[in-house]
Amino acid sequence: MSVPVPMRDVAGEAPGYPTSVELRAEVERLLRTRGVTLEAIADVVCAVQAPYFPDLTPAECLLSVGTVLDKREVQHAVLTGVALDTLAERGLLDEPLLSIVRSDDSLYGLDEVLALAVTNIYGSIGLTNFGYLDKEKVGIIGRLNRSKGGQVHTFLDDLVAAVAAAAAARIAHQRRP
Amino acid sequence: MSVPVPMRDVAGEAPGYPTSVELRAEVERLLRTRGVTLEAIADVVCAVQAPYFPDLTPAECLLSVGTVLDKREVQHAVLTGVALDTLAERGLLDEPLLSIVRSDDSLYGLDEVLALAVTNIYGSIGLTNFGYLDKEKVGIIGRLNRSKGGQVHTFLDDLVAAVAAAAAARIAHQRRP
Amino acid sequence: MSVPVPMRDVAGEAPGYPTSVELRAEVERLLRTRGVTLEAIADVVCAVQAPYFPDLTPAECLLSVGTVLDKREVQHAVLTGVALDTLAERGLLDEPLLSIVRSDDSLYGLDEVLALAVTNIYGSIGLTNFGYLDKEKVGIIGRLNRSKGGQVHTFLDDLVAAVAAAAAARIAHQRRP
Amino acid sequence: MSVPVPMRDVAGEAPGYPTSVELRAEVERLLRTRGVTLEAIADVVCAVQAPYFPDLTPAECLLSVGTVLDKREVQHAVLTGVALDTLAERGLLDEPLLSIVRSDDSLYGLDEVLALAVTNIYGSIGLTNFGYLDKEKVGIIGRLNRSKGGQVHTFLDDLVAAVAAAAAARIAHQRRP
Repeated sequence: MSVPVPMRDVAGEAPGYPTSVELRAEVERLLRTRGVTLEAIADVVCAVQAPYFPDLTPAECLLSVGTVLDKREVQHAVLTGVALDTLAERGLLDEPLLSIVRSDDSLYGLDEVLALAVTNIYGSIGLTNFGYLDKEKVGIIGRLNRSKGGQVHTFLDDLVAAVAAAAAARIAHQRRP
Repeated sequence: MSVPVPMRDVAGEAPGYPTSVELRAEVERLLRTRGVTLEAIADVVCAVQAPYFPDLTPAECLLSVGTVLDKREVQHAVLTGVALDTLAERGLLDEPLLSIVRSDDSLYGLDEVLALAVTNIYGSIGLTNFGYLDKEKVGIIGRLNRSKGGQVHTFLDDLVAAVAAAAAARIAHQRRP
Repeated sequence: MSVPVPMRDVAGEAPGYPTSVELRAEVERLLRTRGVTLEAIADVVCAVQAPYFPDLTPAECLLSVGTVLDKREVQHAVLTGVALDTLAERGLLDEPLLSIVRSDDSLYGLDEVLALAVTNIYGSIGLTNFGYLDKEKVGIIGRLNRSKGGQVHTFLDDLVAAVAAAAAARIAHQRRP
Repeated sequence: MSVPVPMRDVAGEAPGYPTSVELRAEVERLLRTRGVTLEAIADVVCAVQAPYFPDLTPAECLLSVGTVLDKREVQHAVLTGVALDTLAERGLLDEPLLSIVRSDDSLYGLDEVLALAVTNIYGSIGLTNFGYLDKEKVGIIGRLNRSKGGQVHTFLDDLVAAVAAAAAARIAHQRRP
């Protein structure tokens, strides 16, 4: 980036820039078009945290997923990752990047890099859950990974695992006074 | 870490674990004993952000520093980094770590690692300001770096730069609706 | 990503995947088409490290930049970041991402995230130099930042700062036995 | 850290600073006194990578672990993490840090932060394996986690998982030409 520029007046209006609320709506819509509902992510959160918090409800997990998706850093990561997946599907990336993203090349790593940016929002305790979810492919993460027919989810499966891991970390922090 | 363990009852009491509020008070006390006030950190934040937000007040900068220090991840990083500085001063680390920390060895890197954990709490836009502050040694950061007489601030100067960078990033996020 | 899949036979052939040497050539070509030579990056490295190593030569800086660009993680970051810049130039990203990348929105953050992945390759000591270079816009970084006429360098200026910071960190490590 | 200082003459001698080779020997010795052999870490690497590389030998895994431990950033992380474990065992940390480290508090997070610094050395593809190993507690990682009698392995189990994950990532990179 450049150094932050004063791109709005003192009153805080930023004409031309979407608000965080608008971005959140767009992110939710985009995830749905890629086959991911917030409820499906919340299911993963519940599966991971239930052993530690027996009274955890689906509503609390869903609330936590929503709060993670309210963060601008998370919104930007999802918008960017899904854009790369979609561009790869449409053949709009140049080679060799096109083949690398299309094949979900195991050495690519940028998908984990974006995921890390998401997970870090609630601190590093999300790292362990992210890695576990990404490897074990719990719930919707596994369904994304198995989807065929030209669909590319190289970034999306990692992003969903990262949002779930961040939401789980947030619950762990919230439960401690 | 281990996998999170259910170390408290359902009502949320965690006997034996300090609350985030208690940790915040301890962090503030510890910083003061090491020569760092929240006001001095707020001055750095104001210096960095004033060009972009002409109406920014010292009170808003101080509030932002306080909010950063309310985060448990930040509290843990400060407690740990200052502990290592203090142990090095007292000669309680073993060699070769003792000499490495005492001399602020330029290849050490763990001080930046802890700082990164702090900066990440408000997203990656804090990275640039952290690096700039750490190199230019603005305000209190420079005073820590120049302090002599057996004092070790290997971790503290980076942590202060990171808290200031995170507080600046938080202001940038807050100012956008 | 998915869990690493056995996508090649035991002898190590990976038909369809570019070798690291091929990727390096492609990265160098791509940088040149975006106005960045390895020599220009090496100039930044020399500017940063000369005060600490008076005998440092341009050839050593250039060698270090080349070694950084031999790393697959770095190659992937450059390919991906430049792809996003170029897609934004051509209007091939969807809104709101298109406007965010085109305007180099100061809250975007993903450009720093990619840069961090590059810098980390030689350890965290590169962080400070990255932030400094990104803010002070030394040499080619400033020229990229000032370029106009529809060109988008949102990712590229950060990536160049990160490659220079990593190359500088590598020299610091190499000079110590 | 401070800005890198010219702490050695042009010929590269750094009197008073241990060489990377000396640090490696010290790290290996320290790990052994904490119950961790390089062979035990190599076993974890083989367990993780064998499904993808059927011809992988214990010798190749051990070589990869050794190469990871040759990196100064890794050496510093191990020295620092084990120092904190040991200081907690001896009661030499102040409260509340002492109780936090002793109990391996699930919200602490600094152990993952140090682990991340290790894993990043071979790029972000190690993240997934790190999280998986840390959660599933494969081999020596599980033995460290179960050890009792006043021993503190809050940092060590994460560091071992991170070294194994980095060594596995290195093998994945090496196997591709």
